[in-house]
Amino acid sequence: MREDYTNQLASINEGLVSMADLVGKAIRGATDALLEDDLAIAEQVIAGDERINELNAEVEEMSARIAALQAPVATDLRLVMGAIRMATSLERMGDLAVHIAKQVRLRYPNPSIPAELKDTFSQMGEAASQIVAQTGEVISSRDTTLADNMKKYDDALDRLHRELFTVVLSENWSHGVEAAIDVTLLSRFYERFGDHAVSVARRVIHIVTGEPYAK
Amino acid sequence: MREDYTNQLASINEGLVSMADLVGKAIRGATDALLEDDLAIAEQVIAGDERINELNAEVEEMSARIAALQAPVATDLRLVMGAIRMATSLERMGDLAVHIAKQVRLRYPNPSIPAELKDTFSQMGEAASQIVAQTGEVISSRDTTLADNMKKYDDALDRLHRELFTVVLSENWSHGVEAAIDVTLLSRFYERFGDHAVSVARRVIHIVTGEPYAK
Repeated sequence: MREDYTNQLASINEGLVSMADLVGKAIRGATDALLEDDLAIAEQVIAGDERINELNAEVEEMSARIAALQAPVATDLRLVMGAIRMATSLERMGDLAVHIAKQVRLRYPNPSIPAELKDTFSQMGEAASQIVAQTGEVISSRDTTLADNMKKYDDALDRLHRELFTVVLSENWSHGVEAAIDVTLLSRFYERFGDHAVSVARRVIHIVTGEPYAK
Repeated sequence: MREDYTNQLASINEGLVSMADLVGKAIRGATDALLEDDLAIAEQVIAGDERINELNAEVEEMSARIAALQAPVATDLRLVMGAIRMATSLERMGDLAVHIAKQVRLRYPNPSIPAELKDTFSQMGEAASQIVAQTGEVISSRDTTLADNMKKYDDALDRLHRELFTVVLSENWSHGVEAAIDVTLLSRFYERFGDHAVSVARRVIHIVTGEPYAK
């Protein structure tokens, strides 16, 4: 029974790590599709989201089963309850990658972003890819010191998002209103992606330390 | 023990209903602030979000305690686990109302939206207010037939969001890029608000019927 229980807890963690892994692939794919106007990659990202949604449901089911059968306490209980919130955040991160990919599909064969913003979005994609890789690391290692490291990527995403506004609102912006709205929404998707990654890491800290969850 | 248990389950439901209530107040306040450029109301909405966040944490705590001590099964177990997801969605709806209120504060004393879009945002506010009122009703009554009713408000929000794009991208748009971005983001907040309301109602259906959760 105990061995079984330990395996079940490990399965929840593996589910979350798999989700982080797939979400990392999704945001890298979405960024590649965006930078290279690549419809095939965009379609892969969109289709790949189903597996992330399935894992989300699996994590919830496993958590419910353990809560019902094993009456976990302390750290284990926090893991079981926290896993549901983490899975929700990871699933939402997958959705954000899909939003980016769908924007590529919507504008294809036209480019989704003007050439002068490619570098900004490349940096956003890099920061988002790094932050979700760290999220996966924090979940699997429970090494809460790694969470500090994530702040720098989240700050980078916030800064890039602010900088993009300056570009779009400058006198030199020559791409019109629609392109301005497009790139602002795209940028917001990356920024929200970072926020969710940070909230997952904070959840792990709460599980490990038992300290109140800092929103 | 059993009586105590029933009270605890009722408390979770009450917590969720209170959240829906406060979120309803928040979105109505945010809409009033937006339509009347009212900074005082915007500040109230922003300050009021703390209580919603507290209730979110309380629902999680109650759910964790019941899961640990009572080993609930079937409908009760689905309620306990589902409550965490519903609280997350309601909390996020509160954040979206705050985003709207903060936009009012950012642009104050200037109006946040051009006069020609006041009617659109008034309709969005009305639909959002109705949809969260229905969400509260579905949670408290568990009458899943009410959920169908919500679809019409969600459809209205989607339609208004699409229509706004037409206005912003038309030749007649005279307010420039910044205002276009502002109103697009504001409109998106209402649209997302509706999506979250629907996801809460679907969760209630899952709890009551045990049928797989339709995303």
